[in-house]
Amino acid sequence: MQTNMQSNPQAAPAELEFWFDFGSNYSYLSVMRIEQLARQAGVTVLWRPFVLGPIFKAMGWDNSPFVLQKAKGNYMWRDMARQCDKYGVPWRQPSEFPRHSLLPVRVALYGEREPWIAEFCRRVMLRNFSADLDINAADSVAAVLLQLGLDAAAIIDAAQADANKLRLKERTVRATSLGIFGAPTCFVGDEMYWGNDRLDDAVERARRAGESA
Amino acid sequence: MQTNMQSNPQAAPAELEFWFDFGSNYSYLSVMRIEQLARQAGVTVLWRPFVLGPIFKAMGWDNSPFVLQKAKGNYMWRDMARQCDKYGVPWRQPSEFPRHSLLPVRVALYGEREPWIAEFCRRVMLRNFSADLDINAADSVAAVLLQLGLDAAAIIDAAQADANKLRLKERTVRATSLGIFGAPTCFVGDEMYWGNDRLDDAVERARRAGESA
Repeated sequence: MQTNMQSNPQAAPAELEFWFDFGSNYSYLSVMRIEQLARQAGVTVLWRPFVLGPIFKAMGWDNSPFVLQKAKGNYMWRDMARQCDKYGVPWRQPSEFPRHSLLPVRVALYGEREPWIAEFCRRVMLRNFSADLDINAADSVAAVLLQLGLDAAAIIDAAQADANKLRLKERTVRATSLGIFGAPTCFVGDEMYWGNDRLDDAVERARRAGESA
Repeated sequence: MQTNMQSNPQAAPAELEFWFDFGSNYSYLSVMRIEQLARQAGVTVLWRPFVLGPIFKAMGWDNSPFVLQKAKGNYMWRDMARQCDKYGVPWRQPSEFPRHSLLPVRVALYGEREPWIAEFCRRVMLRNFSADLDINAADSVAAVLLQLGLDAAAIIDAAQADANKLRLKERTVRATSLGIFGAPTCFVGDEMYWGNDRLDDAVERARRAGESA
C-alpha cells in the first residue's frame, strides 16, 4: 500500500542484486536458475557481473580455493555433477578451471540493464561448463552476441572502452566494501546470501520485501 | 531382495557416516537435525566425532577459516542466525569461537555406539551454540553426562585413557585419507556430502541405498 510504503522505512521493492563471476562454477548454477525463480516470485534481478580474482588476491590467494585446496576441489567437482543433475542443468567438467573471463564480464557489465543480459550470461556459462570452450577470446564472446542477433563488434568495442574498464574497477571496490568474499552472492537490501545454496532464500526474501512495500 | 543383494555389488545398507566437530557451527545444525531426518528415512546414523584442528593445520591454517577470513566470518554469523531460524534450532552467537572440544569429542568417540550418543551430542552442542558455555572442562562434560543419568566419572576416565586417545589420532588419519576438509561431512558408501546444506541429500541417498539392498 502506498501509505505503508511511505510510513515504513524498511519497505523495499522486490529487487535482488545478483553478483556472479563467469569463471565460478557455483555462479553457473545460479545464472542458469535465477531468471525463472525470480519471475515466479515477481522479483526483479539486478545483474552484477564482477571478477573474483582481485577479491581472492586481497585474501592472499593467487587462484581459486578449489585449486589451492586439493581435497575441497576434488569434492567440488563431484558436488557439481550432483547439483547439476538435481537442477536439470547441463554439465561437463571444464578442462580449464577457473577460465579467464575478463572480456565477457566487461560485456555483461556494459549490458547489465539490457534485455539480452540474462540470455547472454547463460550462453557464456554454458560455453564454459557444458561445452568446455574458451569464453574470453573476442571471437568466443562475439559468437555468443551474434547468436543473440546483436551487433557484436560494436558491443565488444564499447565493453573495452576506458569508461567501461573503469566501471569494472569500481565494481571490484564496491564488492569489497559490501563484504563479498565469493560468488554467487545475492543482496536483498543489506541482507547478504552467499552461494547457489542460498539463492532460493534470497529470492524468497526479495518477494516478501516486495509484498510489504 | 536377498538375490538382488547377492548379485548387486552396489547394494548397501541404509547407513550414513556422520563426521562432525563440536566446535563447528554448521556441525551444530546437523547434530540437531540428523536423528529425526534419519529416523523418518529409515537410515542408521554412524556417529563419527572428530577434530578439525589437525585437518586445518595440514591446510596451513592455525584457526577456523571463519576467523582467518574476516568477511566470510561476518557473513557466517548472519547466515547461522537465519539457518537456525529456518530449522527451528535455538541460537546464541558464542562469545568464544571456535571453542576447544577435545574432551567432549573423546567422550563422544568412546560412546559413539551407545544409545546416549545422539542426545549427548545435542546437549554439548546446545551448551556451545545456545547457552554460550564452555564445553571442554571436565565439569562441563560431566554435567551433560549426569543429565543423561550416566556414570560421568567412569565415562570421562575411559575417554581419557590412552587407548581412546589413540583412537582419536587414528580418526584424524582416517578423516584425512577420506579427503575430509570441513565439517559436517557425511558419507554414504564412497559418496561424500559436505555441509549441513547437503545433509538432506545424504540421508536421501542412504535411504535409496537401503531400498536397493
